[in-house]
Amino acid sequence: AEREGRGQEKASCPGGRATALEPELLCIFGTGDLGRSLGQRLLQSGYRVVYGSRRPNSCGPLPQGAQVMTHQEAAQSANLIFICVHREHYEFLGTLAPHLDRKVLVDLSNNLKKNLYPEANAAYLQRLVPKAAVVKGLNTLSAWALQNGLLAGKQVYLCGNDEEAKHAVAEMATKLGLTVLDRGSLSAAREIEDFPLRLFPEWRLPLCIAVDLTAFFFFYLLIRDVIYAYVENGDEISFRIMVSLANKVFPIVSLIMLSLCYLPGCIAAFLQLYRGTKYRRFPDWLDRWMLCRKQMGLVALGFAFLHAIYTFIIPIRYAVRHKLISRVVDENQTTPFHFDNTEAWGTDSFYALGILGFFLYVLLGLTSLPSVGGSLSWREFSFIQSKLGYLTLFICTAHGYIYGWDKFLSRATYKWYTPPAFMLCLIVPSVVLVLKFIIIIPCVDRTLMRIRQGWERTPPRRETDDVKFTNL
Amino acid sequence: AEREGRGQEKASCPGGRATALEPELLCIFGTGDLGRSLGQRLLQSGYRVVYGSRRPNSCGPLPQGAQVMTHQEAAQSANLIFICVHREHYEFLGTLAPHLDRKVLVDLSNNLKKNLYPEANAAYLQRLVPKAAVVKGLNTLSAWALQNGLLAGKQVYLCGNDEEAKHAVAEMATKLGLTVLDRGSLSAAREIEDFPLRLFPEWRLPLCIAVDLTAFFFFYLLIRDVIYAYVENGDEISFRIMVSLANKVFPIVSLIMLSLCYLPGCIAAFLQLYRGTKYRRFPDWLDRWMLCRKQMGLVALGFAFLHAIYTFIIPIRYAVRHKLISRVVDENQTTPFHFDNTEAWGTDSFYALGILGFFLYVLLGLTSLPSVGGSLSWREFSFIQSKLGYLTLFICTAHGYIYGWDKFLSRATYKWYTPPAFMLCLIVPSVVLVLKFIIIIPCVDRTLMRIRQGWERTPPRRETDDVKFTNL
Amino acid sequence: AEREGRGQEKASCPGGRATALEPELLCIFGTGDLGRSLGQRLLQSGYRVVYGSRRPNSCGPLPQGAQVMTHQEAAQSANLIFICVHREHYEFLGTLAPHLDRKVLVDLSNNLKKNLYPEANAAYLQRLVPKAAVVKGLNTLSAWALQNGLLAGKQVYLCGNDEEAKHAVAEMATKLGLTVLDRGSLSAAREIEDFPLRLFPEWRLPLCIAVDLTAFFFFYLLIRDVIYAYVENGDEISFRIMVSLANKVFPIVSLIMLSLCYLPGCIAAFLQLYRGTKYRRFPDWLDRWMLCRKQMGLVALGFAFLHAIYTFIIPIRYAVRHKLISRVVDENQTTPFHFDNTEAWGTDSFYALGILGFFLYVLLGLTSLPSVGGSLSWREFSFIQSKLGYLTLFICTAHGYIYGWDKFLSRATYKWYTPPAFMLCLIVPSVVLVLKFIIIIPCVDRTLMRIRQGWERTPPRRETDDVKFTNL
Repeated sequence: AEREGRGQEKASCPGGRATALEPELLCIFGTGDLGRSLGQRLLQSGYRVVYGSRRPNSCGPLPQGAQVMTHQEAAQSANLIFICVHREHYEFLGTLAPHLDRKVLVDLSNNLKKNLYPEANAAYLQRLVPKAAVVKGLNTLSAWALQNGLLAGKQVYLCGNDEEAKHAVAEMATKLGLTVLDRGSLSAAREIEDFPLRLFPEWRLPLCIAVDLTAFFFFYLLIRDVIYAYVENGDEISFRIMVSLANKVFPIVSLIMLSLCYLPGCIAAFLQLYRGTKYRRFPDWLDRWMLCRKQMGLVALGFAFLHAIYTFIIPIRYAVRHKLISRVVDENQTTPFHFDNTEAWGTDSFYALGILGFFLYVLLGLTSLPSVGGSLSWREFSFIQSKLGYLTLFICTAHGYIYGWDKFLSRATYKWYTPPAFMLCLIVPSVVLVLKFIIIIPCVDRTLMRIRQGWERTPPRRETDDVKFTNL
Repeated sequence: AEREGRGQEKASCPGGRATALEPELLCIFGTGDLGRSLGQRLLQSGYRVVYGSRRPNSCGPLPQGAQVMTHQEAAQSANLIFICVHREHYEFLGTLAPHLDRKVLVDLSNNLKKNLYPEANAAYLQRLVPKAAVVKGLNTLSAWALQNGLLAGKQVYLCGNDEEAKHAVAEMATKLGLTVLDRGSLSAAREIEDFPLRLFPEWRLPLCIAVDLTAFFFFYLLIRDVIYAYVENGDEISFRIMVSLANKVFPIVSLIMLSLCYLPGCIAAFLQLYRGTKYRRFPDWLDRWMLCRKQMGLVALGFAFLHAIYTFIIPIRYAVRHKLISRVVDENQTTPFHFDNTEAWGTDSFYALGILGFFLYVLLGLTSLPSVGGSLSWREFSFIQSKLGYLTLFICTAHGYIYGWDKFLSRATYKWYTPPAFMLCLIVPSVVLVLKFIIIIPCVDRTLMRIRQGWERTPPRRETDDVKFTNL
Repeated sequence: AEREGRGQEKASCPGGRATALEPELLCIFGTGDLGRSLGQRLLQSGYRVVYGSRRPNSCGPLPQGAQVMTHQEAAQSANLIFICVHREHYEFLGTLAPHLDRKVLVDLSNNLKKNLYPEANAAYLQRLVPKAAVVKGLNTLSAWALQNGLLAGKQVYLCGNDEEAKHAVAEMATKLGLTVLDRGSLSAAREIEDFPLRLFPEWRLPLCIAVDLTAFFFFYLLIRDVIYAYVENGDEISFRIMVSLANKVFPIVSLIMLSLCYLPGCIAAFLQLYRGTKYRRFPDWLDRWMLCRKQMGLVALGFAFLHAIYTFIIPIRYAVRHKLISRVVDENQTTPFHFDNTEAWGTDSFYALGILGFFLYVLLGLTSLPSVGGSLSWREFSFIQSKLGYLTLFICTAHGYIYGWDKFLSRATYKWYTPPAFMLCLIVPSVVLVLKFIIIIPCVDRTLMRIRQGWERTPPRRETDDVKFTNL
């Protein structure tokens, strides 16, 4: 009979109807930020709430409409108890154990670091109160999100050994507007407790690559530009490090990162063509690479953004103004500045391509916002991420080639027998564009299409089922 | 008895409680990307999953916890079967038909193109397995979205002839966090199958207009600027096409597109004033125009963004630096450069208005992001889209007028007796601002307000119901 | 028996199953925009819809599949009636009252202004039809959102005196994909009716501060720059108001606003350290300040954005070009322009810090988009908003200090014995950074951490419960 309360929500059976419409009473242990925010939200969703506190008479401000009692009284009055207390203070629950028999305990606790304790908080709780049904979950909700009503559609995870208890918690969470994912038995508690401690796991690889590339090209340019000038000509131009050098490194890294977004797709296509089937898994490194393409593209966009702003401020730099004025002061007596039409066309095309590339870059970035990407149909999304993506890569690569212009064959370009950085950076994008070009040749494209629809070059050994068909 | 399983989810009646908490078993035909991702998500949501495969022993990696059987065995074990197989391979389902009696078949298939087949995939499936309850739907979900848990709150469409089957699928989808919209009987299947093949339908009209305007003004400016200079003075200034010309075309198109956002609202208001009622439908062209205002505004923002960047790079252009240096080199011996205070005020105001206009433009664009717009109250949204929108239009139009400044009356402006492009582009915005100004005159505004609240100048013939009232 | 229809949705009991699958019939009074959009959405969600109209034969286009009748007939056919009529015309409902006995009336009406009527619309409705169960709610939905399917996950509020009626409406709303929050009895109706009339309440304080700061610094700079030059030297440089002055005011206000985002956090930490407990409430002004930090940061970002664009257009300004040319024309005969390496390093560092600061600013702004922030884990969010936030503040403050460079000790800086504006603006950020620096000193940090985990310097008087523990 004690457990019946849990069934209230779904009690739409004869006789149960009356109670179904009387709001259920939930209990919260702990009157901290989380406890208070959770209680407020539960009250707003139509539940009645009772707090269990060690100091029922002086536990600070609680949401209007909530009762407050001692832990023991509160535990007896409700069937579902939220534990909003730090793990460090769980012992008192052990002493309360006799009053928690057959109750559902929802463990919302988080730790400050991973692997702080040998067992998950929820497992520890279950050990302390063996006869209660412990459910781990909702721990990804912050007091801030609860207060500000940012729950709608948010995913939360649950796990627990008692299916009925989990069911009751899931229904409560659904009423709060949350989307519940069941992660199985209590053994998943550790994984769920580690969720709020994630720190950009999927951004690590792209950021590592970006940092490495930046460091490499920075030192490469430092040697070729600043040190070379000092050693060979005795010029002290170290001031270039802050803006000129940075504005060479950023576009280089951006272009390479962008092409690294599209390279794994090309490799995967060639692998499928070579294997003649799509039913074999890609190597692990390729899978991992493909999973962080979005983050790679966004890092590339960040670098492109920096490149754009660095370019805009060029004319207000001291060194640039100095050069302009010196040019006039030193040379004006002698030769007038001859206007070169080809140069004008070349530089203007260079800028126009850069601007167009940046515009498309920003567009790609916007569609990777969750709320924008989510409103696109499958075809729209693939159009933008693939067609528009390759167009962006093509335009940005062309921007790089025009930058080179007549420098490719000039001897002076190869200081100390090293190629300039912009040439190095054009290698990967050019390879990606050539691979993509091969893939879209009609006959290759057709074969690839068939493979992706399930066709296999060497048919598999037939089994019990001799119907030939393919999967979505 | 066979069909009872479907009712499991809602089985909260006496005796049913035990089974309600035992997870339901669902079957998936097809072990491709979609099948695997769907199975994984279903398992995470607490279902049990069994796969039907033509090669149960070698069908590649499947989500942990899922069973795999032959199609026939799998079909018999579950009541709800997801068909994640290409339509091209549906025939095998015909041979399985006897085992699919009274089962719910969810058709998730999509086609590569519209109108590839005479009948919808789901209709074809129903014909193959006439005794099963075919439900079309969920086909807008991608394997990618399923894997990455991007389902929360996403809308999916269902249709089918069997209400009970549709109900079971809808409940399953709701548990996955999806929002289900029922589109009626199976005859809607074709429409649902065409959804993922949409390619920006609501963007077509705005993009068409933008392309047409761009082309028109490009050639107009090409003739007036480049060709005129060549024909009359023999100057070769074709290099201007890349940046100077583009930077004239973009702001022109942007301003016209922005005013076209607000024109239909003005027309609608005058139509309502003229008719004296809001109960007559607008002409079709006006309706269609009003539906794509948001897209029009975003295209306008894109052009404004390009205009801004093109402006920022002006001073680093070769031609601009050449002009600056030449000016000094040629003239410095003669007259000092006299500082004109009015000119300084004029150009600075011109830039300041442009910047302010762009800032407001970006603000308008931000509020049209789904996640931002969705968090605004009705009054906030209308404040931004209407008040702030007209302010943006006003400031941008003023920016255009100041650009004209003293050129309106100068003879030299009208090369070959044509007005300059910026004058043409000021026509529409000026008209919109005048119309809006008329609308906000108190007496007109009051009449319009009453009409919009349901008042009618010529009262309708009274009918059975003689209570006078108006609708929201 | 009449009320049974309301229970249809949950009728999963023996005998009820059949009717559960027959779509429920809902009634809508009013055929305006809202009524039509709501009906369409209800039909799409699988309900049957009947309209009540004063002119059933000429009420304009209605969604396909909906019936239309007189009010009386429509009221009798359904149990749940949506009132999509302006409050001004509610009287007719009084005359219909006998037919509305025991019906659920959902009042969706809004008013044009606050406090237009002495009682809430819903309370007025309940008075007119005392025997009906009035539920106020869904009034935050716009016809536009209903038509465009933007409901998924949106929060709506309900209130009403009849729990059963509220339950029925909540279930209907959940089926539409809405998230329902119960606000209690009908006395909350006024509050719910005021929701759509909110106009950026949480933005008021930040905008006020921004406007005040802007005005103050504008006049301060006007006096020190423009008026000083006129009075002391007789120079007329009023043209500087439009761009130069603005471009000094914007970064100043932006930096101060950004530091005001972080100041309350520091004050709160010191207050907790001083009190030795976290269980006492902060003063009201601090609470209010902390609640608008996000808006403050976004206003600061807006000003930083304006500062960036104002900076980009500097070199195309008339006055700047004039100065550059004059410099050459006036001085070129005499001394060549000596290149100062320190100056080059200084200005380039100044620009580089500014760009980096702006980049981080934009990053912070992006994570405050609801859809981006919602996808971050707790640790990620706190990393970005706290660590990255302080880094941004540090870099922007350094940008300000480098601007000062050698001006701090120069006599000429203190015109009319006043400090320049940039010095004033560095005060608050410097204070915040010093406070933060104190807080992260290990011993202070440790004490603060313990306090935030519930430790108290002076233990509270023990009460009934003598277990010591802390709350989340």
